[in-house]
Amino acid sequence: MPTNEFFEKSIFLSNWFSILLVTCVAVLLRCLLAKVDVAKYLWGHHHEEIACDLANNSKEGHCEEYISALPEVEHVPYIGATITLPGGSRQFYEMANNRRSVRAFKPHPIPAFEVIENCILAAGCAPSGAHTEPWTFCVISNKDLKHRIRCIVEREEEINYGQRMSKQWRSDLRPLKTNHIKSYLTDAPYLILVFKQVYGFTKSGKRKQHYYNEISVSIAVGILLCALQAAGLSSLVTTPLNCGAALCRLLNRPINEKLLVLMPIGYPSDNCLIPNFKRKELKDIVFVK
Amino acid sequence: MPTNEFFEKSIFLSNWFSILLVTCVAVLLRCLLAKVDVAKYLWGHHHEEIACDLANNSKEGHCEEYISALPEVEHVPYIGATITLPGGSRQFYEMANNRRSVRAFKPHPIPAFEVIENCILAAGCAPSGAHTEPWTFCVISNKDLKHRIRCIVEREEEINYGQRMSKQWRSDLRPLKTNHIKSYLTDAPYLILVFKQVYGFTKSGKRKQHYYNEISVSIAVGILLCALQAAGLSSLVTTPLNCGAALCRLLNRPINEKLLVLMPIGYPSDNCLIPNFKRKELKDIVFVK
Repeated sequence: MPTNEFFEKSIFLSNWFSILLVTCVAVLLRCLLAKVDVAKYLWGHHHEEIACDLANNSKEGHCEEYISALPEVEHVPYIGATITLPGGSRQFYEMANNRRSVRAFKPHPIPAFEVIENCILAAGCAPSGAHTEPWTFCVISNKDLKHRIRCIVEREEEINYGQRMSKQWRSDLRPLKTNHIKSYLTDAPYLILVFKQVYGFTKSGKRKQHYYNEISVSIAVGILLCALQAAGLSSLVTTPLNCGAALCRLLNRPINEKLLVLMPIGYPSDNCLIPNFKRKELKDIVFVK
Repeated sequence: MPTNEFFEKSIFLSNWFSILLVTCVAVLLRCLLAKVDVAKYLWGHHHEEIACDLANNSKEGHCEEYISALPEVEHVPYIGATITLPGGSRQFYEMANNRRSVRAFKPHPIPAFEVIENCILAAGCAPSGAHTEPWTFCVISNKDLKHRIRCIVEREEEINYGQRMSKQWRSDLRPLKTNHIKSYLTDAPYLILVFKQVYGFTKSGKRKQHYYNEISVSIAVGILLCALQAAGLSSLVTTPLNCGAALCRLLNRPINEKLLVLMPIGYPSDNCLIPNFKRKELKDIVFVK
């Protein structure tokens, strides 16, 4: 069949120009919306990850037109850490090494709410890109709400374990003996859902960039874990796959917040078991020059 | 000009079929390589971020064929945190709140290397996706190497401040009084470069998935910050834009490692100034139900 005949017979090919046009417009629109240049979009833009979502549009007028999201504060002397531990780094390491992820909690005793508040205050001392403090900590102790969270998570986790997670992933989790049943979500006296604010708002309601928000909020989670351990509480860092949107809706979170982690908080149940893993040795994680 | 004439006159249009074919093949190849489905690729795949880089290929054979990257260890009883702080969460919060980001360090005294080791050991106690421990901490005290790192960072930062960073970003940083000169990189007695291992290797040399590696390593950085504070040391979490590749080359890091953060470690200089920021209040970061 000669090309012309082939061309005339196919609906797709006879409309080639419209299809090409629509495709090009779609790609261009997508790039415009995401502020990504076309070449980067077509060939992937994950190579310098840190750069890609930050270093956008540098040609947007004069610097003087832009108001800093932070107040222009005075700079004051700082003499360094004065509140430390008597046993220093050794004491801190022993405390950190005593922490383990717990998947079985007892409902009682309920830790004092003030303790949870102090731990979150400590987490809020984390550094953040341009001091944006892009975190929200939702503390749930209401039984009905914990139950609804568990329903959402278990429904998704059943699909995760059955379909979404790769065979390799499920095999990698086997030594942890996890499955889609998450009784810790109703057993633990508290759940802390940590949200990252992917952007914020200035006082005048303008959108405010939150630089490196995921790294900043994860660092805050690291500090939260240490604070909980210092208070004698146990926890578990979970990242329930595909539950973010439903949990945001349930808790009425604003559109700029995305769930980063969900942590049950409390004391281990009396028959709590943990996998007897060893941590990597210093020589396997440090490289000295 | 009738369509046919227009069609014959343009090189692009007369080769429409080849161009369409090449474009389709390119898009398909890209999707295959990134294991993303075509629709997701064309319309963006950042919506359920946690899901997208993890929940790939679930139809890859039987679970039994896959060996867990972790050993199948016994499960042992855990009674919860036994090494805590006498002052609990309040003492921990006061310590965390005493920490500030420092941009001016003094070269002496040099903290004992053992202290740095303990702090990194503590960071290595962070939880991680499927216990993959996807971190490498490079500790640099060699003067020549610190100087070379400073050269790389300052060269890129000059371009960052001049071209890559948006005007808004530079305005947002103005209250911090930063610029491309990074004297702390040679003044601080130690630099710790924290790398995330985006994947790992099994004993047999097979590629091993590192689930949620960026969140895991950032949590470890949070613990590292607390350990340094406990030891009386100051630091600064920096994410030098576009320097990752050059620093990986300089330090001969394997291809599975990407720079997450670069931290100068030591004591503040005698004339160290910090911006007099207030942290957000509890009511602005907590939401209770």
